[in-house]
Amino acid sequence: MAEARDIDDLPKNAANYTALTPLWFLERAATVHPSRTSVVHQSKSYTWRQTYQRCRQMASALNKLSIGLGSTVAIIAPNVPAIYEAHFGVPMAGAVLNCVNIRLNAPTIAFLLGHSSAAVVMVDQEIFSLAEEALKILEEKNKGKYKPPILIVIGDESCDPKDLKYALGRGAIEYEKFLQHGDPEFAWKPPQDEWQSIALGYTSGTTASPKGVVLSHRGAYLMSLSGAIVWGMNEGAVYLWTLPMFHCNGWCYPWTLAALCGTSICLRQVTAKAIYSAIAKYGVTYFCAAPVVLNSIVHASPEDTILPLPHVVQVMTAGAAPPQSVLSAMSQKGFRVTHTYGLSETYGPSTVCAWKPEWDSLPPETQARLNARQGVRYTGLEYLDVIDTQTKKPVPADGKTIGEIVLSGNCVMKGYLKNPKANEEVFADGWFHSGDLGVKHPDNYIEIKDRSKDIIISGGENISSLEVENVLYLHPAVLEVSVVARPDERWQESPCAFVTLKPHVDKSDEWKLAEDIMKFCREKMPAYWVPKSVVFGPLPKTATGKIQKHVLRAKAKEMGPVRKKKLTRWICHRD
Amino acid sequence: MAEARDIDDLPKNAANYTALTPLWFLERAATVHPSRTSVVHQSKSYTWRQTYQRCRQMASALNKLSIGLGSTVAIIAPNVPAIYEAHFGVPMAGAVLNCVNIRLNAPTIAFLLGHSSAAVVMVDQEIFSLAEEALKILEEKNKGKYKPPILIVIGDESCDPKDLKYALGRGAIEYEKFLQHGDPEFAWKPPQDEWQSIALGYTSGTTASPKGVVLSHRGAYLMSLSGAIVWGMNEGAVYLWTLPMFHCNGWCYPWTLAALCGTSICLRQVTAKAIYSAIAKYGVTYFCAAPVVLNSIVHASPEDTILPLPHVVQVMTAGAAPPQSVLSAMSQKGFRVTHTYGLSETYGPSTVCAWKPEWDSLPPETQARLNARQGVRYTGLEYLDVIDTQTKKPVPADGKTIGEIVLSGNCVMKGYLKNPKANEEVFADGWFHSGDLGVKHPDNYIEIKDRSKDIIISGGENISSLEVENVLYLHPAVLEVSVVARPDERWQESPCAFVTLKPHVDKSDEWKLAEDIMKFCREKMPAYWVPKSVVFGPLPKTATGKIQKHVLRAKAKEMGPVRKKKLTRWICHRD
Repeated sequence: MAEARDIDDLPKNAANYTALTPLWFLERAATVHPSRTSVVHQSKSYTWRQTYQRCRQMASALNKLSIGLGSTVAIIAPNVPAIYEAHFGVPMAGAVLNCVNIRLNAPTIAFLLGHSSAAVVMVDQEIFSLAEEALKILEEKNKGKYKPPILIVIGDESCDPKDLKYALGRGAIEYEKFLQHGDPEFAWKPPQDEWQSIALGYTSGTTASPKGVVLSHRGAYLMSLSGAIVWGMNEGAVYLWTLPMFHCNGWCYPWTLAALCGTSICLRQVTAKAIYSAIAKYGVTYFCAAPVVLNSIVHASPEDTILPLPHVVQVMTAGAAPPQSVLSAMSQKGFRVTHTYGLSETYGPSTVCAWKPEWDSLPPETQARLNARQGVRYTGLEYLDVIDTQTKKPVPADGKTIGEIVLSGNCVMKGYLKNPKANEEVFADGWFHSGDLGVKHPDNYIEIKDRSKDIIISGGENISSLEVENVLYLHPAVLEVSVVARPDERWQESPCAFVTLKPHVDKSDEWKLAEDIMKFCREKMPAYWVPKSVVFGPLPKTATGKIQKHVLRAKAKEMGPVRKKKLTRWICHRD
Repeated sequence: MAEARDIDDLPKNAANYTALTPLWFLERAATVHPSRTSVVHQSKSYTWRQTYQRCRQMASALNKLSIGLGSTVAIIAPNVPAIYEAHFGVPMAGAVLNCVNIRLNAPTIAFLLGHSSAAVVMVDQEIFSLAEEALKILEEKNKGKYKPPILIVIGDESCDPKDLKYALGRGAIEYEKFLQHGDPEFAWKPPQDEWQSIALGYTSGTTASPKGVVLSHRGAYLMSLSGAIVWGMNEGAVYLWTLPMFHCNGWCYPWTLAALCGTSICLRQVTAKAIYSAIAKYGVTYFCAAPVVLNSIVHASPEDTILPLPHVVQVMTAGAAPPQSVLSAMSQKGFRVTHTYGLSETYGPSTVCAWKPEWDSLPPETQARLNARQGVRYTGLEYLDVIDTQTKKPVPADGKTIGEIVLSGNCVMKGYLKNPKANEEVFADGWFHSGDLGVKHPDNYIEIKDRSKDIIISGGENISSLEVENVLYLHPAVLEVSVVARPDERWQESPCAFVTLKPHVDKSDEWKLAEDIMKFCREKMPAYWVPKSVVFGPLPKTATGKIQKHVLRAKAKEMGPVRKKKLTRWICHRD
């Protein structure tokens, strides 16, 4: 087969192969649309030419401080231009970007900065003292062998000038001054190898110990394009930053927007009013939002809304299936909601409930039921399935048989940093194991039934807490709900519902409300699914708005085993 | 720096890395939209489920014949479903697809099939005897050591049944029967290495010896997505096949359409009437067309048009800058023309004249002038520049200094098959050398001034034949024009214009017409640019509609050196 080999005897060379990296997108945007607005924040606005120069300055300034290949640069900031710029400037220096959740407490931040060996910490002026506290903890833990990171403070005209002054007094370098150290014409280099790490992000989430998710240039490139393709996002999109960029690199959209030469509208504080006003003011066409944000849009008071919308606004949501009532209300207002699913480990959403034109004519409840599913794989992900946890074989596409959702392909993380045991588990058998339980419907769309650990096992029967929640969301008094297992003398476990009521609901007789809710459930689900306990109060949430089921599970345990139907008043303690 | 290395000590594994290949797009389309129409041809129409099954059958049937890794499968067919299917079925078998231009003659086809060692030849029934003739030539050339390829004939209901009958009588296997040998559930495998070849295509073109351009799975994947992004092509696009799929793999759009779960409308014969009727009948939103097709749309008789268009139709054109008159006329009819530039060696177009919203308000002539440029790099191409041919340094972005257009990145071919000398030349100094001469404008957009060999050197001064042509296109009598160098006693070379006149033009006095054209030129260009010779008649073209300048150059040479202004009648001979 001498001839046969010929066809492949053409090696890679400098002209036909280069590492995939989203950094080229920025260079292209600055070449094609130098004068177009790249990033807007309050009264500040940058063009692509400026953003490219600023990112090159950042990379150059970092290199001058010997920060480069192998270094980690942490940033603790809300959605301000600096965190957008860091998505390019840090990897252009060859370093890895670690975006830190601004809502974590000092000990956790100390853990992250230590674990990632952050050489530089960029911090928003409002959060400076938190970072300082974290660094103090870190120093104490590493007495003697501690080399403090370079501290950079990001000023913001909309914040209290005292914070900035305080930070500067503590020796922090001002962000704009730092950039000025760098060369705006800096000749950055793409990575030698596209497998090189571009970002590191810690899972916040529902379990105790944060794990460092490491992403590659290759994966970030592919996910950036895939995120545009599945959402039908075109050149020049105007994107509103409601989703924190520190949350899984804003699902890679900082890079997507450069690929599309689009415009980023920053938001420090996410409110329904700010969203409506950005739509009207900047012509926002896209934003991503957790279900809790959709909730606030739907329930916004009339003076905070600008309706009808001047144009269709695309909203991508992930994290939990939005309840039908929310989906319907959003759609009536002119928002088009795309429901996706993913994890930090998959560069953010990597499955999408791809809308079918044939659904357009279905009744709203059916539409919402179909759209609440997790759907199909992104274009950039190669493999998605639901497998039997015992046999490891795909479950039948019957919409009933529960298995674990597994994924594989180029939009799966490189692994957890310094955690071989977790890597071994999560990558077992050639899949990424999501830890989520779901079914595959006859139309090939998958649907989450629960996190493995959120399944309630009552009298040997599995109850999906999610399914119970879905029914509870249909109750007119329920604003938010979370269902967990509570110990049960007779059934080992039984469902316990933690409920936040809508503002307008008369809360004077909670017994009556609880009984009404249970009656509502009895009409709509098998008897053993019906919550035996209902608890009213606000729900504990992570920094990114996820309900902390482990807190509720602990609370349910504390309440002791169920003996008979009873109600317990429970108030959530939040700092 | 032990810590520093940690961040990259996370190897690729089966869950987080797989070879990039456009083949996954097909599997996804069949999973997400199994019932959506994939391909339409005349009265036949397939769904994505069917197309996926048929492609798996093809791969399986090929494997059963020991056609796999290292094999080449040739197809000689117009835009019918079989050539769409071959774009997936052949690489799913591990083999390389070679689409052969149906307008080549038998000796050339014999050369290609021999050079590529085609193990299978699939041929449309109408072209069967041409293929048979080519194989006869090939057999004679390789007497004794010749193993004839497997011959498959593709039937078409719209063609003469006698052709099919003839082919079957000559021992060819019928395409549908061939598919039936294969397993519709065939477990195809993606390539082990994304650098593996997916396709081979021979440059037709303007030079004598065809070169085999080899493309990789990786490049095809990236170009498919890039071709969607730069054109704003969304999920469910309806695409009309005016561009031959045998031409540079239809610029990778067979794969793009699978990524978008879009619909392909096949066209055997490209006419303005057929284009308008497909727009109305199938809701076509996108098609690609050579300038000659745009011309035919603009000049279509009213009974062949359906105007106003029911919706905006996006047209991508490449190959030559469309004249302003054509661009304006297309735009007035509701077509939106995107002008791109590329070569077979760059997976088709890899630069785009990205439209800027700020051009919307400019006068039509200015718009056309701006849009006639070759523009900026595709998202998927990493490097584009114009370099001085001597110093190899980028020319200034002044819109004047001419240099060679060079490209590099992941959308550049692997190389020419069995042609190390050509590879060395074309990949010299780490670039792909396009052989086109151009300038870089102050807005970073590049513009072709000429092919290196098309430059006319008159009295030591360079004249861009393209610039002269651009002016000639403005003349109301000119339909098509090509300008080449003619030997000149005094100036060594001078411009000679070959002109096709518009149908309505009174052709009785060609002397007067030629003088009028020259006068027109004298008003609009430097005197030494003005063609000294004007020749009327049809222009010789390649199979893909490119004007064959080398034929005209030969003709101009034959005419002998210019002594004084004179006219020559010249009739193009075409087979």
